[in-house]
Amino acid sequence: MGGCDDCAGSEGTAAMSKATAAELSGEERLIARYFRPLAKHPGAFGLIDDAAAIVPPAGCDLVLKTDGLIGGVHFFPDDPADAVAKKALRVNLSDLAAKGARPVGFLLALALPEEIGPAWLEPFARGLGEDAEFFEFPLLGGDTDRTPGPITISIAALGAVFHGKMIRRSGAKPGDRVVVTGTIGDAALGLLLRRDPTTAERWDLNRGHQDYLKARYLIPQPRNAIVEALRTYATAAMDVSDGLVGDLAKLCRASGVAAEINVESVPLSDAARAACAREPALVETILTGGDDYEVIATLPADAVETFRQAAALAHVAVTEIGTVVAAGEGSARFLDRKRQMLSFTRPSFSHF
Amino acid sequence: MGGCDDCAGSEGTAAMSKATAAELSGEERLIARYFRPLAKHPGAFGLIDDAAAIVPPAGCDLVLKTDGLIGGVHFFPDDPADAVAKKALRVNLSDLAAKGARPVGFLLALALPEEIGPAWLEPFARGLGEDAEFFEFPLLGGDTDRTPGPITISIAALGAVFHGKMIRRSGAKPGDRVVVTGTIGDAALGLLLRRDPTTAERWDLNRGHQDYLKARYLIPQPRNAIVEALRTYATAAMDVSDGLVGDLAKLCRASGVAAEINVESVPLSDAARAACAREPALVETILTGGDDYEVIATLPADAVETFRQAAALAHVAVTEIGTVVAAGEGSARFLDRKRQMLSFTRPSFSHF
Repeated sequence: MGGCDDCAGSEGTAAMSKATAAELSGEERLIARYFRPLAKHPGAFGLIDDAAAIVPPAGCDLVLKTDGLIGGVHFFPDDPADAVAKKALRVNLSDLAAKGARPVGFLLALALPEEIGPAWLEPFARGLGEDAEFFEFPLLGGDTDRTPGPITISIAALGAVFHGKMIRRSGAKPGDRVVVTGTIGDAALGLLLRRDPTTAERWDLNRGHQDYLKARYLIPQPRNAIVEALRTYATAAMDVSDGLVGDLAKLCRASGVAAEINVESVPLSDAARAACAREPALVETILTGGDDYEVIATLPADAVETFRQAAALAHVAVTEIGTVVAAGEGSARFLDRKRQMLSFTRPSFSHF
Repeated sequence: MGGCDDCAGSEGTAAMSKATAAELSGEERLIARYFRPLAKHPGAFGLIDDAAAIVPPAGCDLVLKTDGLIGGVHFFPDDPADAVAKKALRVNLSDLAAKGARPVGFLLALALPEEIGPAWLEPFARGLGEDAEFFEFPLLGGDTDRTPGPITISIAALGAVFHGKMIRRSGAKPGDRVVVTGTIGDAALGLLLRRDPTTAERWDLNRGHQDYLKARYLIPQPRNAIVEALRTYATAAMDVSDGLVGDLAKLCRASGVAAEINVESVPLSDAARAACAREPALVETILTGGDDYEVIATLPADAVETFRQAAALAHVAVTEIGTVVAAGEGSARFLDRKRQMLSFTRPSFSHF
């Protein structure tokens, strides 16, 4: 600390502005450059306050979720930064969708290794902004740190549902049907393709199928478009992020029911079907691999067709895959065409 | 994937329960063991759903903040895990306090290296639970991942203020007085003591002073006890986390004012005073070092005494350190006893 310094205060506005700009810390400049343009919600205060403030939507409960991505764990270090940003948002949007909640906004906690600079931050902020706009899911605030570890992105997501109307995991009832959106297993196969390029040859996949599966791993498609249909008809729901088998078991345990799933009914993409035709054992990867970000839901048998039609209007395919049955502690049974139960070596993705 | 497996389904309840417990993934077991006991808020659903749901407090805005801690960056890898947990919560509670918001609850995103097990998780969860209880700040939900990097803890904090009453950085007016809670610079000195044990000798600090400064770095004391007084009297406020000089400059820029601070008035602990007596240049560390987690606020001159008394009732010391003056772009001037302005080589902590 030096002594007297009169450089500021008497040189007029231009000089003061310059001095002010120079005073901004690197962190403030980074936020101003990349993230302030995204903070359009009035309660984000342009990211220049300690916190955001939002008026909760009238008559609604807030639905809260946090989910994160870690470089080398949830995405490849060389994945395009805009895709990483979208995946980070969408894994959280997927939870909001499954809970019947509309997006309200998110907080972003970003830990960045030393080598991350504008070449990564610019596309990351662009991707984040595109999805924030598309899903009407504004950035409300954040935190940015350096880390000696990999890129670590934590999103805290806020959604809103009418009071008491969040779709729980625990509402499935015997007799309900089990449905799932989209197709299952694509991302798990895409991940295998990314990890081992010889896989594509072994599966004899054409370029289009390879690209499709990889894209499904890279950027999930959350099902927020059917949130109202889910809220109207589903008795229970969750998003499939750790594999269909393990996640359905969680839903069954929470509901105190069992489910019987016809494995042949589980919807597969053409690409997954092509891979499976060459390597039938892939059905385990498909059913237990993670990163689907589809919604699994239960609903009364007489609501399935109406629900399917409502989802179709939003261009989301819905497939009935099984039935909820009464059973002690709750479990999910995956039955083959002979109604024999399949067992899995690793029913669910888990970090621990 | 094998063929038929009839092990479940016909062995009665006891066998089903056992099978169910075995089905839980490592992540589910970790959550059940360490974090479910903390999730007492009904909207946390015992952490067995995808998301939490809360009824927003009537007539209130929600105040939202995320702040994180990274091992080796914000705490020492050998810091006690209960202290790390408390610091992670308190750095966020400090922001809520400065914004005039009462705590509502938090989400926890945890990324853990491979070597982290029960010996760390048990005290971490205990510390988290103790502070969650003390500050009435319940765990609402979370996410737990493995990371190849250091322990990374992101908290997303929710608070509540009466509609429109969040204390902003931008409300300071010429003529207002600048006050600060507690004492400044302790944590920055504590960090130096942790980094270089020879420092204690150079500063000729007794054991009590050393322990005090280190403790101030290890576990901050957020000022949530004076949140009502702040909301009643403060025209602007923020928490001092990146150093008094830089943070006050942010408040001044947001308010479009300047502040004149009498450096001699800045409150120091006995320990900081003792260190400073031996090494006067430490005043720069004290004024620009981070991790104070005190509140800096501006308020009308005639409210200072009432505010001070209200804070004293909550056992929080408040010291007047300067005055807000009108000035173009906003800046903070730190004046010595001869009213000469001090300059700083690094006014604020920044990761970038």
